[in-house]
Amino acid sequence: MSTVTVVPESAIREIVTRENAYEAVKKAFEAIAEDRAEVFPVTFGTGLAPQDVFGVKAGADSAGATVGLKIGSYWPDNGQHDLPAHGSTIILLDPDTGFPMAILGAAYLNGFRTAAANAIAVDYLARKDASVLGVIGAGHQAEHEIRAVAAVRALSRIRIHTRSTGRAEWMARQLDDIDIPFEFTSAQQAVEGADIIATVTPSTQPIVRSEWVAAGAHVCAMGADSKGKQELDTDLVARARWFADLPAQSVAIGEFQHAFAAGIIPSADTICPLGRVTRQPDLGRRDDEEITVFDSSGIAIQDLSVARAMLELARERGLGSTVEL
Amino acid sequence: MSTVTVVPESAIREIVTRENAYEAVKKAFEAIAEDRAEVFPVTFGTGLAPQDVFGVKAGADSAGATVGLKIGSYWPDNGQHDLPAHGSTIILLDPDTGFPMAILGAAYLNGFRTAAANAIAVDYLARKDASVLGVIGAGHQAEHEIRAVAAVRALSRIRIHTRSTGRAEWMARQLDDIDIPFEFTSAQQAVEGADIIATVTPSTQPIVRSEWVAAGAHVCAMGADSKGKQELDTDLVARARWFADLPAQSVAIGEFQHAFAAGIIPSADTICPLGRVTRQPDLGRRDDEEITVFDSSGIAIQDLSVARAMLELARERGLGSTVEL
Repeated sequence: MSTVTVVPESAIREIVTRENAYEAVKKAFEAIAEDRAEVFPVTFGTGLAPQDVFGVKAGADSAGATVGLKIGSYWPDNGQHDLPAHGSTIILLDPDTGFPMAILGAAYLNGFRTAAANAIAVDYLARKDASVLGVIGAGHQAEHEIRAVAAVRALSRIRIHTRSTGRAEWMARQLDDIDIPFEFTSAQQAVEGADIIATVTPSTQPIVRSEWVAAGAHVCAMGADSKGKQELDTDLVARARWFADLPAQSVAIGEFQHAFAAGIIPSADTICPLGRVTRQPDLGRRDDEEITVFDSSGIAIQDLSVARAMLELARERGLGSTVEL
Repeated sequence: MSTVTVVPESAIREIVTRENAYEAVKKAFEAIAEDRAEVFPVTFGTGLAPQDVFGVKAGADSAGATVGLKIGSYWPDNGQHDLPAHGSTIILLDPDTGFPMAILGAAYLNGFRTAAANAIAVDYLARKDASVLGVIGAGHQAEHEIRAVAAVRALSRIRIHTRSTGRAEWMARQLDDIDIPFEFTSAQQAVEGADIIATVTPSTQPIVRSEWVAAGAHVCAMGADSKGKQELDTDLVARARWFADLPAQSVAIGEFQHAFAAGIIPSADTICPLGRVTRQPDLGRRDDEEITVFDSSGIAIQDLSVARAMLELARERGLGSTVEL
């Protein structure tokens, strides 16, 4: 008899922390950078209505002894069911048998795993004295990014740009418990003078202009993860050193797709995988003047590594249910 | 709070029948033939060892109000864990929200859903008086095919070809409860004089030669489902009328890939989808002399339709468990 452990979102809310997400994502980045993990071609489908879409991202990680996949769904009308539009479910396969060993409700987890990538990048690439954070975007993920960056740098000020007054009001309420002064500004004001710039939008047009970005800044391009999405102008990329979770994916569907198409980035090999930097920090920032850009397009190994960590914690604490499958 | 219903293999063993599998697969074939269902590109991955492989097949079926995916795994060394090499898990997404509604242990079900395709094809394409069945292959699936065909035609004799004495002995034990005389023969003897020929092997070389096949025979090519697999010689295909679960997939990865590549089948449009025949039986066999070939390469909609039927039956009978996700 085969069994599967179901770890619900409510259990994950109890056990996920910025720290355990950070450690799991760091391991994932190192595994993929060292060719000890592999991601497989993503497949996309639709629901019964054309606006309802889902993607399946699978991977295998020898370093973490983890095989599995994530189903990410986007049903824009879910509000009417009191559910978020984005759903995320991770299925871990037993690496010894291929049979499912766990299924995790991962929508809440997803924000942590994405923000952990940003935190790692900031930790290894931003100046140690970086204190001003500029954020483009004010959705749920932007809140995650702010909290993740605040955990790795002593921030003195946060400037947030959103075109929506409603989103600004929402974000102000969310950040009520944060000690750091924050304000809502134009995109230019958010970027100018920022030591760390995080873009967290679904934009398909560059928002951050090169002339706004000061020497020594670190930029996290979190938004672009499919063809056509773009948040940075390519002149900024041309001035910067390049880092990514997975360079080959970055030039295909990440922020760097545009600089790559324009010939500014000659090949994926000229982008440094973040997992190499965490192993060899001297591959990261070299001085206080250079601009570093980290392109996060998101990889299945990140999900699997975080899911595996959650499964182990859930088992330790007796959370979730194990049922016959 | 979101919940998921887990329907284990043991529950499916209680509720699946040849009849309910047949009805569900017939609906799936009609939905795909009438463009009311869609299958998405299949993605493949590996486990931690290169011989361990899995595929993810997703689909959406408006007719059956079903969205989801099947994870099919093949871990050849599973015998050491007392588990079958082939694993199969189906995840149904709630068509209204995209969140998982059910997960089914579907390895046992898989044999029924595949054999149901064969039964439907035989029912609509074999002569009404067909009574001699020739089978190439003697694996688990071959047993399913024999039982499925025996349910739709009054068989008088079964001839089975396998190159393995061990498989023949196993099959003889399996068929102990069957009333129909069966014998193990050469491939030629199994095919010659057979009214229905079912090929159920992973062969990559043609086994069934055209000169062995009598006029009026119906052939079910069950084995080929990936590039390079082949069970029939293309001269046989050239003599026959062509039917498939999904013609576009058939010429890409099914048995018909070879006749298509050879120019014998000019286009996928010249292959009749089986779901059109079940709706309009006059599109099927026209006389007692023609040879019909059905190419089953397997589609996700088949899995989803059968899984949906199993989920409904499990709920009616109080089987499975519903847990928080």
